[in-house]
Amino acid sequence: MPGDRHVAMLDQRLLPRLERYDIFHRAEQVADAISTMKVRGAPAIGIAAAYGMVLAAVACPQPRKLFLEAMQAADAMLRRTRPTAVNLAWALDRIGLTVHRIAGESALQRVLVLGAEARAIHAEDVAACRTMGALGAQSVRNGATILTHCNAGALATGGYGTALGVIRAARDAGKKVRVLSAETRPLLQGARLTAWELHKDGIDVETITDSMVASFMARGLIDQVIVGADRVARNGDVANKIGTYGVACLAQVHGIPFDVAAPWSTVDLACPSGAEIPIEQRGEREVSHVAIGDAEVQILPDAVRAHNPAFDVTPARLIRALYTERGTAAPLTPEGLSRLTPPSRAT
Amino acid sequence: MPGDRHVAMLDQRLLPRLERYDIFHRAEQVADAISTMKVRGAPAIGIAAAYGMVLAAVACPQPRKLFLEAMQAADAMLRRTRPTAVNLAWALDRIGLTVHRIAGESALQRVLVLGAEARAIHAEDVAACRTMGALGAQSVRNGATILTHCNAGALATGGYGTALGVIRAARDAGKKVRVLSAETRPLLQGARLTAWELHKDGIDVETITDSMVASFMARGLIDQVIVGADRVARNGDVANKIGTYGVACLAQVHGIPFDVAAPWSTVDLACPSGAEIPIEQRGEREVSHVAIGDAEVQILPDAVRAHNPAFDVTPARLIRALYTERGTAAPLTPEGLSRLTPPSRAT
Repeated sequence: MPGDRHVAMLDQRLLPRLERYDIFHRAEQVADAISTMKVRGAPAIGIAAAYGMVLAAVACPQPRKLFLEAMQAADAMLRRTRPTAVNLAWALDRIGLTVHRIAGESALQRVLVLGAEARAIHAEDVAACRTMGALGAQSVRNGATILTHCNAGALATGGYGTALGVIRAARDAGKKVRVLSAETRPLLQGARLTAWELHKDGIDVETITDSMVASFMARGLIDQVIVGADRVARNGDVANKIGTYGVACLAQVHGIPFDVAAPWSTVDLACPSGAEIPIEQRGEREVSHVAIGDAEVQILPDAVRAHNPAFDVTPARLIRALYTERGTAAPLTPEGLSRLTPPSRAT
Repeated sequence: MPGDRHVAMLDQRLLPRLERYDIFHRAEQVADAISTMKVRGAPAIGIAAAYGMVLAAVACPQPRKLFLEAMQAADAMLRRTRPTAVNLAWALDRIGLTVHRIAGESALQRVLVLGAEARAIHAEDVAACRTMGALGAQSVRNGATILTHCNAGALATGGYGTALGVIRAARDAGKKVRVLSAETRPLLQGARLTAWELHKDGIDVETITDSMVASFMARGLIDQVIVGADRVARNGDVANKIGTYGVACLAQVHGIPFDVAAPWSTVDLACPSGAEIPIEQRGEREVSHVAIGDAEVQILPDAVRAHNPAFDVTPARLIRALYTERGTAAPLTPEGLSRLTPPSRAT
């Protein structure tokens, strides 16, 4: 993704049909890519927004006041693209601090410093994935079959992945792992993205529909579940892709451990519980049609309405462990979370 | 569907895109329609098989021995199309009794008698749906939002429907009902068929993906669940469309009643429990592609395998009530079931 005058992004809506990179020169294009889900995944949209701010700085007028106004407008535009993943606001807050610090610099200097900051956010995310991956991998039994939902992989992060980072780290530690990827309707990130990236990476992956999860659990075919997160509230409740909560309920019914992996940028200590996490409602067409590029099938009669909440909330009590780059919270309690919070940043 | 020399069947694979009827003249065509799921739904495939046997009789040679051989071959061909729904074997067993009774009759007389028997199976199924519908409707609260999975409607039966028969009967009894239809991947019977037939019938229906069920339950947006069945074992375990068991688990977790409606032809007293019900495994393409007619989207990378068990088993303990034309089994225990069995047919 990096580049101070342009950003290249894989259009994830076209996978696995087409591997196409779009080159963006303006922050508006990045905002559009986030809201249309060309790029998705909580850490990835934070990183994308940071690069979007760099593109905004490239286009900014020299005077300090006009620069700050233009950057504030770009921030607002990027911030309202998607409401649930807190990484977006986190990355924009962090870039915002730099914006104010360097507002008096030359236009060139501003772009260089903001570019370096965006690249730092990106690189820190990859490092965080590797750290939490190594932590989570300790809980993966050799020979385990792991269910995951949606895509919390390299495509959803700066690279390596959160939930899929745990799986990669287990594999890299010499463990044999097999992944069942729940397809994750409506947008099929499990089938289109998780299956694609794990297969490319040589990890044994097979797909099931979301409706098959319970049956596979009942037949003893799933050993553990690992997913990512879009926001972790102060009490440990986790918002993640719609369907995650159902998988967590079914895991508990069947006595199967359910873990979450997410960078600290996903933890929102200002949010008391899952009830306060805003849940994005997306358009009906993602449910009424299945579309990849120009291939499209309408599955619902015209006149019938569809619902499309993009996320749900899994209560902390259903989660065995949260893996972050600061350590593991297990059990995932407010106390467990606060032990990971450095005192200087605790709220 | 009736007609002694041909059978007309709506090709359900094309809905809601196209409403096309196929005219079949040979039993082979009916067998193909069942195995490719042009016609589906446990009661409907039993009825279709019965009509298929009539078409076989039309083509049969006169001599008694040759007639019996040809009818036995047709029976075997139809019987092996799909393994899980016991209604198929039930209807073929019943037609088989008539075949042996009228084997000595004229070719014309055989067709007339078998045609009448197939139409009787068809008409009795509609009557059974209306009876169980009226029974089940008593448990539907005025103003209720009812979740259903797959299609257990007019399209899946001789008409009126089992689970959807309960909903129709509640509406016909003056109750206000609202239906949430889970889309039911892989073949999307909930989106394509249930939404289509309920909307045509003027019943308030909206669609959600299978992955949204838990979230809707947690938010108090579902009052009760009603589904159909493909086989009910002697202990009350129910095989139904893949995903049903997960919905039943989630209903129990959230304290939501979960009911089943099915004609007595779905009850298999020779099958001790769900563990003995054969579960059909269908082709990967139904999962890796979403297709309606010639509109098709491939959602899985070529090299990634998919699983496709077509059914799962819901243990009797998760089911509040089974509605049949012989009465209601609630709780659904072996004793509750046997109370519905006339002594002469009890096993």
